[in-house]
Amino acid sequence: MIKVGVAGYGVIGQRLADGVALQKDMELVGIADLAPTLSIRALKERGMPYNLYLVEGADKAKFDAVGIPYKGTFADLIGNVDIMLDSSPGGVGVKNKALYEQAGIKAIFQGGEKNSVADVFFHGYANYEKGLGANYLKLTSCNTTGLIRSVDCLDRKYGLERVAITIIRRVADPGDYHRGLTNALQMDKAPSHQALDLMTIMPHVAATGILVHTPVTHGHIITVVAHGKKGKITKDMALEAFKTHPRIRVVRIDDGFLGNSSFFRYARDLGNPRGDMYEIGLWEDSIVESGEDIMYAINIPQESVTIPETMDGIRAALKMQPDSVSATTETNKYLGIGKWK
Amino acid sequence: MIKVGVAGYGVIGQRLADGVALQKDMELVGIADLAPTLSIRALKERGMPYNLYLVEGADKAKFDAVGIPYKGTFADLIGNVDIMLDSSPGGVGVKNKALYEQAGIKAIFQGGEKNSVADVFFHGYANYEKGLGANYLKLTSCNTTGLIRSVDCLDRKYGLERVAITIIRRVADPGDYHRGLTNALQMDKAPSHQALDLMTIMPHVAATGILVHTPVTHGHIITVVAHGKKGKITKDMALEAFKTHPRIRVVRIDDGFLGNSSFFRYARDLGNPRGDMYEIGLWEDSIVESGEDIMYAINIPQESVTIPETMDGIRAALKMQPDSVSATTETNKYLGIGKWK
Amino acid sequence: MIKVGVAGYGVIGQRLADGVALQKDMELVGIADLAPTLSIRALKERGMPYNLYLVEGADKAKFDAVGIPYKGTFADLIGNVDIMLDSSPGGVGVKNKALYEQAGIKAIFQGGEKNSVADVFFHGYANYEKGLGANYLKLTSCNTTGLIRSVDCLDRKYGLERVAITIIRRVADPGDYHRGLTNALQMDKAPSHQALDLMTIMPHVAATGILVHTPVTHGHIITVVAHGKKGKITKDMALEAFKTHPRIRVVRIDDGFLGNSSFFRYARDLGNPRGDMYEIGLWEDSIVESGEDIMYAINIPQESVTIPETMDGIRAALKMQPDSVSATTETNKYLGIGKWK
Amino acid sequence: MIKVGVAGYGVIGQRLADGVALQKDMELVGIADLAPTLSIRALKERGMPYNLYLVEGADKAKFDAVGIPYKGTFADLIGNVDIMLDSSPGGVGVKNKALYEQAGIKAIFQGGEKNSVADVFFHGYANYEKGLGANYLKLTSCNTTGLIRSVDCLDRKYGLERVAITIIRRVADPGDYHRGLTNALQMDKAPSHQALDLMTIMPHVAATGILVHTPVTHGHIITVVAHGKKGKITKDMALEAFKTHPRIRVVRIDDGFLGNSSFFRYARDLGNPRGDMYEIGLWEDSIVESGEDIMYAINIPQESVTIPETMDGIRAALKMQPDSVSATTETNKYLGIGKWK
Repeated sequence: MIKVGVAGYGVIGQRLADGVALQKDMELVGIADLAPTLSIRALKERGMPYNLYLVEGADKAKFDAVGIPYKGTFADLIGNVDIMLDSSPGGVGVKNKALYEQAGIKAIFQGGEKNSVADVFFHGYANYEKGLGANYLKLTSCNTTGLIRSVDCLDRKYGLERVAITIIRRVADPGDYHRGLTNALQMDKAPSHQALDLMTIMPHVAATGILVHTPVTHGHIITVVAHGKKGKITKDMALEAFKTHPRIRVVRIDDGFLGNSSFFRYARDLGNPRGDMYEIGLWEDSIVESGEDIMYAINIPQESVTIPETMDGIRAALKMQPDSVSATTETNKYLGIGKWK
Repeated sequence: MIKVGVAGYGVIGQRLADGVALQKDMELVGIADLAPTLSIRALKERGMPYNLYLVEGADKAKFDAVGIPYKGTFADLIGNVDIMLDSSPGGVGVKNKALYEQAGIKAIFQGGEKNSVADVFFHGYANYEKGLGANYLKLTSCNTTGLIRSVDCLDRKYGLERVAITIIRRVADPGDYHRGLTNALQMDKAPSHQALDLMTIMPHVAATGILVHTPVTHGHIITVVAHGKKGKITKDMALEAFKTHPRIRVVRIDDGFLGNSSFFRYARDLGNPRGDMYEIGLWEDSIVESGEDIMYAINIPQESVTIPETMDGIRAALKMQPDSVSATTETNKYLGIGKWK
Repeated sequence: MIKVGVAGYGVIGQRLADGVALQKDMELVGIADLAPTLSIRALKERGMPYNLYLVEGADKAKFDAVGIPYKGTFADLIGNVDIMLDSSPGGVGVKNKALYEQAGIKAIFQGGEKNSVADVFFHGYANYEKGLGANYLKLTSCNTTGLIRSVDCLDRKYGLERVAITIIRRVADPGDYHRGLTNALQMDKAPSHQALDLMTIMPHVAATGILVHTPVTHGHIITVVAHGKKGKITKDMALEAFKTHPRIRVVRIDDGFLGNSSFFRYARDLGNPRGDMYEIGLWEDSIVESGEDIMYAINIPQESVTIPETMDGIRAALKMQPDSVSATTETNKYLGIGKWK
Repeated sequence: MIKVGVAGYGVIGQRLADGVALQKDMELVGIADLAPTLSIRALKERGMPYNLYLVEGADKAKFDAVGIPYKGTFADLIGNVDIMLDSSPGGVGVKNKALYEQAGIKAIFQGGEKNSVADVFFHGYANYEKGLGANYLKLTSCNTTGLIRSVDCLDRKYGLERVAITIIRRVADPGDYHRGLTNALQMDKAPSHQALDLMTIMPHVAATGILVHTPVTHGHIITVVAHGKKGKITKDMALEAFKTHPRIRVVRIDDGFLGNSSFFRYARDLGNPRGDMYEIGLWEDSIVESGEDIMYAINIPQESVTIPETMDGIRAALKMQPDSVSATTETNKYLGIGKWK
């Protein structure tokens, strides 16, 4: 059993912990955090299903005051795991890395850290083999993770020369007050980092993109204009490829998937914990051809989309499976991905 | 075992079904709907935990086309239950009532129907006894249900003469596209129906109010200015009363409950199905005195708040418990309300 | 002096009236509407600078009650003009057309009507010559009007083979309550009508597109992926073309144009009536190359963008100027477009 | 002619400058700012109707680079005026005060500064006399300014004992990206500062209040529950008082004033510069009685509401008029307030 710890029990950290707890070949040793946040308070109300460790700087008195039990220090956690999943706030992960190196353990960092924090910039489908045995992985961000699923899917089957993406980005998570946008669409300078990141992971595909922030909380939407390497990819060809991908849900507007919030509604109705969904959505009725290009739109559930690829990352770093196919199959099985197909 | 059916498997209907399924002294016979909506599709993906019955006008071919099994017709469902919970779209409930009368069964209608549809306009705490043995109950709307919890709580303990409320209303549910408001606050003519409804349920308290629609999807906020009957109600007195109510969660901004969406975030983190919460929130740091008045603010989780009082309604209509205290205690036990206190 | 009337004094109609009033070679005979709306009440508070005519079905008593004077009937207006600008609600324009035909006058319909209402689907830059002497023109919608400005600009200079567009659409106008979207991004089925409309106006360019509705009120954003006919169009080439177009404002994020609402803020600060802007915005820092493609983003001020092209339409229909260059030059002069360059 | 300068040409500063320019008994010497913001760029595009002075720390090269002319330094401006209107960012005003003292000139600070910056916390209607001859005034914030108009109006005519307010606050101005809220209602700790500020200005009235931030940009809405000192104030009595106040517009939902954004729409349609409105709105159909209390709702145009009271402040500080009635009459005349009554 691979022993895993999670640093930072926020939006991503909670879901990483849940994800690890579902992997039958892994053990979640515990989670670490700094303060009795709402998420930690919820953990207490649930009866502490996960052990809590306190990072340096944590004020024990604050935890004691509200009766939240803790098992030990961050060092205790690190000393007892094979690998840490680090979802600390941006900039903290790189500091934690020194501790991981000292303890001789591996780690996977989330999108908030700089690429330089890790040996390998990782995606479970597009470059699993690069992560095999690596000590420090950095996972692609939520948008890039979901985007690459769809681009790699087409590329693997038909070959792609270039993509141009438009990211219609949700600006805050549900429950955020410290950031937000009100009645405005905000531009980022082009090209967007997601296009550049895609080229780092898939260097044989040219990519560019424009990102626009929008005032919503559930799910980015990305449009992709793709150009095949070996001739035109038709709508039928694209659809056939997308439908076989376990982490892509092909949906239709006519079936009720009218926009990004339909996925959240549907995941809540499914009874998924937190209303989360691991799959990206892809609208069948968005796929259109234009001359030699194919265009389509996907939905990225930003809170949960990177969880499966992070599980893949554990598998790669610890050589649990030798290749992407066998690793993603295990991850998918334990997370219940693809059951519905 | 009391046999219960649910008509209309939408936002409220799904939660009614879940609520009944949790009551160990009730049996959910099935749910009825018209079309293979996203909610029905989710039910199928979950493996049909509830039996589906098709209402008149349903196109069986559409269900067959996507492989959604159904158990029978609406008449089949009605013929097999003691009571129906009707959460059909507004105006349909009154038509269904004729069927219920024919079948000789009882029913509880949700807030969308006119008061005249029912014999008793019902709230589990404020007028349980009026509902005892009644054939047709109508439940108060989400805002009124939550509001009355807090007003009845103060009234029962200290006596209230009048209240003036300001309802800051969420305008759509998560996943709605057919209604919404963008960058606008919309006024309703005063007094708001919630103030009038409060007076219908609690005729000894004068009430008025102003309602403003706001462009958010999770949780109304209501401010209440209350005037005691027997002298001033202080902050300490109010707090003491609120803290003992099982269906009120007293929270603090300093603990992280910064606004309406904190409750949704917290309920998701708790692992509650759909991220739902049955309790209203009440901010301790909102309670202020002004001269002889006391003022406070509450949060209403619009999708789920009426579920407990509807369970109470079943208990009243079928005389399962003789009074509010014993009935709400049963409901709360099965729904897990108050465990956290 | 060409005599012009405006039917429908709403969001577009008011701006058409203002636009005509600024053209020194035209005379605004009056505007027609049905009810004492806020816009008509504002006209009264301004001292009735434009004559009001009442359309059929108008209740004179309602106008009298609030002291709003009217000059005559719709027939009176029609009988006294050379051309009508019809910005009635969708579907009304086609009914009005019968009246225009009877009276032997010309008309220009706005985007809400079906293309079949008119002889020519019109854009002032892309197909002015087709409108010369035509009796009935239909103007492209706001998004299409602005989009074509930029696409025609590149096509005229360098030749274009195809474009793929992503429309990030504002969902309501400021002051709308009857439509809106709350915390959701809504998909339209692809291809979007704007792509199809572009091909109708510019049949030598292939176009496709995806449209996503967003919950904001000021200004659509469109990203365009364009493929040149005669080789690659570089960023410098594109920028050079865009900078010379009178109805395109090239701006930079670093100068403070952070998103769609910056244009509205800037236009208000300019003292423009209603905070309107006739030009589209184009972000210099959004222009990126990808392989053989060029990509860029524009901002569409939905309330006012079609006004200049409608003035061009009057000039075409009445043969006031023989070609696009001379007509748009006149329109621009009177509207103050390009002064700032 | 009273000579006036404006420090800080942002949302408020621009409107202060416009307001002074309209007062025929005042002269706007110039405005001062730090950087070539969008507002300063708009000033340039308008042909520099106001003289620009550069505050300390301004980088002249940046102004030169875009061809924005400046007249001199902040010291030059201060040396040439009788009074400064300081709408610098919060915290800067108090530093500027030292310069004003050195130069022996008066100043009026806006709501962002602490009360201690000034000798008198000022409102043109409620305590004009306190400001007579004072050297340093601080104006009430936008919400407090508008709120006091209505409360003072009732108090002056009928006497008030206490008020309890609910502030439904817009969270950002149009064009803001640095702050905002997305799909959330955020609570402030009670009592809100506006209630406390009201008591500072009107110490004979008790006040409390709760403030909720909402994700909109145009116009706060405040509900007021008021209790008369000499018996019940009826709806008719309240309405009669409100209708005579020059800076209150009594409107009706039935006339089209459906919410906060209707005022902005209406002001734009009126042709008001920037779509601004100096008056607060008050909904006739929101006025309701409850027992001995009266309740009503007002709309606060946050960008422009404090301009008239600031003009009043100049009149008080420089003893231009001896009392509130004569001073506000002058201000109103020059700003065009009340013409429409």
